[in-house]
Amino acid sequence: MNLPPHDDRLELERAREPSTRHDEACDDKPHEECGVFGAHLPSSFYDKGGDIATLCQLGIFALQHRGQESCGICVASDDEIRIEKDMGIVTEVFTEERLAKLRLPGGRIGLGHTRYSTTGSSLRFNAQPLTVRSNKGLLALAHNGNFTNARELRNRMLGEGAVFQTTNDSEVMINLIARYSHLDLRQATELAMGELEGGFSVVLMDRRSVIGLRDRNGVRPLVLGSLAGGWVFASEPSALQVIGARFVRDVRPGELLVADDAGLHSYQVLDPQPTPCAFEWIYFARGDSRLDGVDVHDSRIRMGRQLALEAPVAADVVVGVPDSGLAAAIGFSRASGVPYDIGLYKSPYAGRTFINPTQALRDLKVRLKLAPTNAVQGKRVVLVDDSIVRGTTSGRIVQMLFEAGALEVHFRVSSPPIRYPCYYGIDTAARQELAAATMSIEQIRDRIGATSLAFLSEAGLKRSLQLANTCLACFNGHYPAGHPGEETPESLAAAAREERVFA
Amino acid sequence: MNLPPHDDRLELERAREPSTRHDEACDDKPHEECGVFGAHLPSSFYDKGGDIATLCQLGIFALQHRGQESCGICVASDDEIRIEKDMGIVTEVFTEERLAKLRLPGGRIGLGHTRYSTTGSSLRFNAQPLTVRSNKGLLALAHNGNFTNARELRNRMLGEGAVFQTTNDSEVMINLIARYSHLDLRQATELAMGELEGGFSVVLMDRRSVIGLRDRNGVRPLVLGSLAGGWVFASEPSALQVIGARFVRDVRPGELLVADDAGLHSYQVLDPQPTPCAFEWIYFARGDSRLDGVDVHDSRIRMGRQLALEAPVAADVVVGVPDSGLAAAIGFSRASGVPYDIGLYKSPYAGRTFINPTQALRDLKVRLKLAPTNAVQGKRVVLVDDSIVRGTTSGRIVQMLFEAGALEVHFRVSSPPIRYPCYYGIDTAARQELAAATMSIEQIRDRIGATSLAFLSEAGLKRSLQLANTCLACFNGHYPAGHPGEETPESLAAAAREERVFA
Amino acid sequence: MNLPPHDDRLELERAREPSTRHDEACDDKPHEECGVFGAHLPSSFYDKGGDIATLCQLGIFALQHRGQESCGICVASDDEIRIEKDMGIVTEVFTEERLAKLRLPGGRIGLGHTRYSTTGSSLRFNAQPLTVRSNKGLLALAHNGNFTNARELRNRMLGEGAVFQTTNDSEVMINLIARYSHLDLRQATELAMGELEGGFSVVLMDRRSVIGLRDRNGVRPLVLGSLAGGWVFASEPSALQVIGARFVRDVRPGELLVADDAGLHSYQVLDPQPTPCAFEWIYFARGDSRLDGVDVHDSRIRMGRQLALEAPVAADVVVGVPDSGLAAAIGFSRASGVPYDIGLYKSPYAGRTFINPTQALRDLKVRLKLAPTNAVQGKRVVLVDDSIVRGTTSGRIVQMLFEAGALEVHFRVSSPPIRYPCYYGIDTAARQELAAATMSIEQIRDRIGATSLAFLSEAGLKRSLQLANTCLACFNGHYPAGHPGEETPESLAAAAREERVFA
Amino acid sequence: MNLPPHDDRLELERAREPSTRHDEACDDKPHEECGVFGAHLPSSFYDKGGDIATLCQLGIFALQHRGQESCGICVASDDEIRIEKDMGIVTEVFTEERLAKLRLPGGRIGLGHTRYSTTGSSLRFNAQPLTVRSNKGLLALAHNGNFTNARELRNRMLGEGAVFQTTNDSEVMINLIARYSHLDLRQATELAMGELEGGFSVVLMDRRSVIGLRDRNGVRPLVLGSLAGGWVFASEPSALQVIGARFVRDVRPGELLVADDAGLHSYQVLDPQPTPCAFEWIYFARGDSRLDGVDVHDSRIRMGRQLALEAPVAADVVVGVPDSGLAAAIGFSRASGVPYDIGLYKSPYAGRTFINPTQALRDLKVRLKLAPTNAVQGKRVVLVDDSIVRGTTSGRIVQMLFEAGALEVHFRVSSPPIRYPCYYGIDTAARQELAAATMSIEQIRDRIGATSLAFLSEAGLKRSLQLANTCLACFNGHYPAGHPGEETPESLAAAAREERVFA
Repeated sequence: MNLPPHDDRLELERAREPSTRHDEACDDKPHEECGVFGAHLPSSFYDKGGDIATLCQLGIFALQHRGQESCGICVASDDEIRIEKDMGIVTEVFTEERLAKLRLPGGRIGLGHTRYSTTGSSLRFNAQPLTVRSNKGLLALAHNGNFTNARELRNRMLGEGAVFQTTNDSEVMINLIARYSHLDLRQATELAMGELEGGFSVVLMDRRSVIGLRDRNGVRPLVLGSLAGGWVFASEPSALQVIGARFVRDVRPGELLVADDAGLHSYQVLDPQPTPCAFEWIYFARGDSRLDGVDVHDSRIRMGRQLALEAPVAADVVVGVPDSGLAAAIGFSRASGVPYDIGLYKSPYAGRTFINPTQALRDLKVRLKLAPTNAVQGKRVVLVDDSIVRGTTSGRIVQMLFEAGALEVHFRVSSPPIRYPCYYGIDTAARQELAAATMSIEQIRDRIGATSLAFLSEAGLKRSLQLANTCLACFNGHYPAGHPGEETPESLAAAAREERVFA
Repeated sequence: MNLPPHDDRLELERAREPSTRHDEACDDKPHEECGVFGAHLPSSFYDKGGDIATLCQLGIFALQHRGQESCGICVASDDEIRIEKDMGIVTEVFTEERLAKLRLPGGRIGLGHTRYSTTGSSLRFNAQPLTVRSNKGLLALAHNGNFTNARELRNRMLGEGAVFQTTNDSEVMINLIARYSHLDLRQATELAMGELEGGFSVVLMDRRSVIGLRDRNGVRPLVLGSLAGGWVFASEPSALQVIGARFVRDVRPGELLVADDAGLHSYQVLDPQPTPCAFEWIYFARGDSRLDGVDVHDSRIRMGRQLALEAPVAADVVVGVPDSGLAAAIGFSRASGVPYDIGLYKSPYAGRTFINPTQALRDLKVRLKLAPTNAVQGKRVVLVDDSIVRGTTSGRIVQMLFEAGALEVHFRVSSPPIRYPCYYGIDTAARQELAAATMSIEQIRDRIGATSLAFLSEAGLKRSLQLANTCLACFNGHYPAGHPGEETPESLAAAAREERVFA
Repeated sequence: MNLPPHDDRLELERAREPSTRHDEACDDKPHEECGVFGAHLPSSFYDKGGDIATLCQLGIFALQHRGQESCGICVASDDEIRIEKDMGIVTEVFTEERLAKLRLPGGRIGLGHTRYSTTGSSLRFNAQPLTVRSNKGLLALAHNGNFTNARELRNRMLGEGAVFQTTNDSEVMINLIARYSHLDLRQATELAMGELEGGFSVVLMDRRSVIGLRDRNGVRPLVLGSLAGGWVFASEPSALQVIGARFVRDVRPGELLVADDAGLHSYQVLDPQPTPCAFEWIYFARGDSRLDGVDVHDSRIRMGRQLALEAPVAADVVVGVPDSGLAAAIGFSRASGVPYDIGLYKSPYAGRTFINPTQALRDLKVRLKLAPTNAVQGKRVVLVDDSIVRGTTSGRIVQMLFEAGALEVHFRVSSPPIRYPCYYGIDTAARQELAAATMSIEQIRDRIGATSLAFLSEAGLKRSLQLANTCLACFNGHYPAGHPGEETPESLAAAAREERVFA
Repeated sequence: MNLPPHDDRLELERAREPSTRHDEACDDKPHEECGVFGAHLPSSFYDKGGDIATLCQLGIFALQHRGQESCGICVASDDEIRIEKDMGIVTEVFTEERLAKLRLPGGRIGLGHTRYSTTGSSLRFNAQPLTVRSNKGLLALAHNGNFTNARELRNRMLGEGAVFQTTNDSEVMINLIARYSHLDLRQATELAMGELEGGFSVVLMDRRSVIGLRDRNGVRPLVLGSLAGGWVFASEPSALQVIGARFVRDVRPGELLVADDAGLHSYQVLDPQPTPCAFEWIYFARGDSRLDGVDVHDSRIRMGRQLALEAPVAADVVVGVPDSGLAAAIGFSRASGVPYDIGLYKSPYAGRTFINPTQALRDLKVRLKLAPTNAVQGKRVVLVDDSIVRGTTSGRIVQMLFEAGALEVHFRVSSPPIRYPCYYGIDTAARQELAAATMSIEQIRDRIGATSLAFLSEAGLKRSLQLANTCLACFNGHYPAGHPGEETPESLAAAAREERVFA
């Protein structure tokens, strides 16, 4: 559906506090909110020395790029469930000591999660998986994406006497499931799935089964793999590869899959209306992933090729912004015949952030991360990046290239201008901070100081993706899975304030 | 009511894993489970520079002896609620950095808690106060004591679609309150109070009010103070003194007090049947506290005096086991005329535990903590302690005194033998580990190697306490506030297993 | 020797920054600077399962009261030496992980140290033992006390081309030893001992031997014990008791003892002129220790008795300031007939300091640590403490007792007024901060608000100690082991500044 | 000079414990041992708000790739010197809290260091800069490289009565300097420089000056920059760029430069015999650096081009091993006409190591770090890397490419086979672990499973470097700056054991 016209739309945006965002000003990229992983294995897995805790650890390490704020693992044997979760990345949180606590005798069911929160501060209580005791026993749930009607559902259940300890959408879903107290887990989850709107992939477990499901639009990815006679769910195939699992297929939009000792069963709960998120191919997914049948690396090469056709330029060298712009730069080089080179050295320590940096350090962040090489000296340079959010980083890179002796810097972006917020689990930026929401292309070019600037067209993007339908809401404001309504700045401010309690 | 005869009673005891208990073998004392603190102050408090976060910090520091496993503080202004809690003692958890997060503009309502868990492992999720969003807004709750019907209430609510994220009794109470969705907070709390059985003191807050309440038996203490035109609740008066508050009175058994901007209102919700826990005077409460009108230090002196009358002995010196036996030793010395001296040097580092100690270090624990002084050399010694749980520590102390040259060691205990578990918030030990539950006095004397051994009589204890009625359940098995029924070893084992998930 | 008259003496005091001292304002007591421990055991010790690392850990844990800022352990087998040291107390620094690194195959020689630095900030580089590679192989050295001519010796060696990495006196001594490159370790140490002035006890080891020595005045204590056919040195007998070693005797002033596989050999290197430090008995040493033949607890009882004779008063109760004033209070009670009671409850968490406390918390420190009991209410109180340094804490305690209902508070101090700095390893306070250096007794009484105030006389102290000679320099300015000369405020300020580099 | 023939040479290698090396098995690359940084700025720098501590922090952050084990910063004002150093990388060690300690009033002289130790374990005492008090005042020294005669010099000074607290070469040099007690710092350093053999760059400071120097062969790099009217030294120009300093020139082999308030003075202490280390261009130096007049990125492109000429192959795609093989891969692609593509996705979390990984995790390390993209599927692949040390990682990558559908994998290495140890500050591996030291090229090819394997020739490397002379000792065993002699396996084992004491 379409959004109302521009001026009325501001109030739909989520309240946020950009200044406190972790690293936001630094990398100036959209942020994926989560990676999910789940596995149900036969008892022979444990008997032959398999370790479900390490399996989950490897799985979420391979999904680390989808969320760096917190992570968690929940494992179960027939008898027992254990969970460990905390703020931090997988290598920090899952020390051997912590993994040892998860090494249950007979452990063969597991759930893992990496998270990038969308709220103003990092909240330990919101770390996933969420575990609860319900009338269906102990349940653990992890999700990627957003429920656009979470607020309405939460308010309804509050009125019925429920209490909420987190501000996490997972808690809404698990309460929905528990309310169907007369149904079994699968039936209750199906009904809950029908009540939830938005874009989301969910993995859910109890001591006997693992359930994977995807919203009817398939906005967020979820794949199915097989390992050692059992089944594995993951946000991306990369998590299958690292554990040696075989890729089976993508979970279908609107599908619910149950893996238990009776095998794997599929339930097409909702009519599929596939519109997977284009940004998974543009930026989020790993270059070695294939989602919904389309290889990510290949699609990026195609975006670069298409970009060269749409916005050619006479130049001496094509360089990409590491790492996300490199594949498109190679595609651009191939289509244009302009040689490809490494124009920007990226520090291997770029991801290590200074603790409590001063503003001076913050300003230097791009310089600490990237440095121009001799490849641009005396050259007319095509600089390729995957997207522009605010444009601050882009401007600094352009300036560096000129300082290093580039004669011209032609900025080429392998996606269309981002103009609208995402309600399906991606954190771009506040609308007023999006360069393309408030400026013309020429104004942006002027702001970043490039010789020329061009974006890939929506049509060009679609051609490169080779998918029937995709969600392009952040580019065009058409939200295929609906969007939250009737929010006012006041209600959003109040919500943001309430969230802070759960530190 | 009385318990069934001995052999049938074993299954009533709580599942526990003694070997994993923090420090249990070392100090061999009963453990109080919690200290609670709450304050509602007028806006002038903040305007004049008052800091509610530091106030709560000081309050729970003064209650640290009631629980060393986790602690938490929740504060509110008119607009906002914030909470910080973690495993550890107050000085470790509440760094300046953490307090800074609690320094809300306009902050003037606060809740604090120190906790000693009764379950097999230390559970971060169980740290209090518990904060939830409910139909009555954001609530925070902290309690001291146990609800003996918590399991039944939890199961009932599970069947109604509720989910539970902790194994904490507080979550049961807060769900009970939320279920009365048509009532206001005070009314709903009154009804919840009527449904809960056991011995407990609770402090509860939202953004406008602080509620303090005590079970109808007043098993656990709770006092009321006034400060800066507002009101303060605390488990013991010591927490009032340290913040400069004036002691007003004890909260009455069965009473609910509401402090808000309209002032303080008292509701006698349940008929009072006062039977405060005798162990508060024997051991738990600080020596500078006065509870239910009886000064703690004075009562201990009286217990020692009474003990000297009941079990006199010809001796040269009276020494107490630091620190809890010292006051009774002075009382014994006064009544008997035998000189008092310091017979055991206590290391000021006794409380600092070795991290991951080897068994060798564990065995040395008493020796690292206590050392005999020259005061016992060549003397007939009366050694006074407040209680004997397992008797292991007692035996080691007796041995040390003989090694240091004592000629005789007459062990005198200023309380009766502990033979029954407590269901009201005190963790003694598993029944089979209680020395007096399985051995005669003579057998205990033999086990600990003392020349003679005597306990204070129940009648003597009552006389010393100068209270009409007290709970003496751990001595005589009469449980004035009921006890949990119908548990089987299987159900308890299952429950213990389920608890582990919430790490 | 005597100091010059008062006004000329100020420049002799050590440069210091009182405001940055750890906890100084809080406890207002002199600070001992170090505890030392050493052991040389036969190979059978290891073969039978003995663990030299744990032995050292226990030894220094028992000496923790002599220094809380840093600690270290060095162990050796025939082949290898290992060291671990860090800022912090024993229980914090020596985790099992760290001890494991010290568990050498064949380990049977060890050195341990606890330290309280005398300089403006806590310096990790100054942690002991100090280990160096020299022409005599690998050496480790730990000391307690001060060399009054350290600066001259350091400057001399600097001129000869030596470099210094710490500001620790131990480095001066070890360089002195290394300079005698043609001599063996024992001979070189004897010569170094002759060059060093001041009050000090030292334990020194290489891979074959442990050497213990004491300055000619025996200012600081050092005792010898035997264990498992080997030898142990320790600052106090308490460290022997905890490891099960047998006390043999005190090391003699001016004596050097070598323990190696050839047995124990004694060398009386310097003529003994025994003047042990009186403050070891007054305050520092543990109540279960016996030093130079005088039992510490007994001497404190005698000090209290003597004080009652010198400064009697009509009163209802005698209470001591925990813990150091308790023994003298009992002595006072016995000699005066006034009943002894516990007037001040001491929090078991008194030693846990708040991290980065605000000034408000600092001011409350005494109140958080001590609280008056009902024992003083309506009474004329005799309050006994072992010493007064600044008097700030004393004043707060007096005030608390009056608030708790005391009618009169008669302050009695079981040592003479402290008027002079110590140059032999005790940190009292800057001279201008010492109450008795700048005020009359009546002025101090007025400052602390006591009804009356009296100190033990020097003669009375000597009588109580029952020693021929003791160092009373901090009371009377007579420095039996010399003092540093010719320092100016400028040179001291420069020295303090230089020290800061070694963080 | 040449080494003796092969069989006699084994004993010359340094004792090491490969199994304990940090990450060694994982990245299978040589390790640079250090990065150095120093700055002397005029007082106007501080007056205008300049912060020498942050300047040093940025400088060593830019040199982080040269050493990840420990780091340190030393700063001075006219009055004072301060140092902070610890184990860990710059972002971990230099928190704002720690930097604040270095913010001296008037601070304008600074030294920084990052270190990768060559010994068996990580040693905190060996962290640099080393600070000592000497007859020339307080000195701080940091170095990159090795003194091949360090042992002889240390033994000589030990015999003269010196003591050593570290096993760091810096301590040898600073003692050498201090021994010239009658000379000033510059003169003494010149003489010390003449006594030291090997390959090293050193930066040295006192409160007035910063000295930078380079061995006569200029084995390790050191550059000079200017900033704000003062002077900066750094191992690579990248450290100048990040702080906004202007590159002036390389420090010359055998040159000593003094920067103080009198300006910059150059002393050509030793005859230059330039043979800079080829590995700086092959692998160590950042791609944006230019050393001794040769741009690093350009030289890598040339190495790839040359490799294509020397070892051409019919193929469909050229891919590089990230990140060090990418530039050579582009060069190979350009010279051969075979298209370049991204064949291996590198996880941005590759550098985050699991804490205490199990062996299973260790084995998966390459897979966690790298994953093949679709670019190699169905293709004949040329795989370019900069070097092969053990070959273990290379074999795993080849296997991954075949698994991803590569038809052929032609391995091309842009440097000659490594056959000899480095004595000038690079840690390759124990000789017996070097693939090329014990296997023929064909044997290596077989081991790693490649379709074909070729290395760049020595002549090709020289041509690519465009330098008159370079140190190629690790390829050909010719050590232009000498090597340590007369070591036996016994002496090395003893040395390794002695090192362990300084933990």
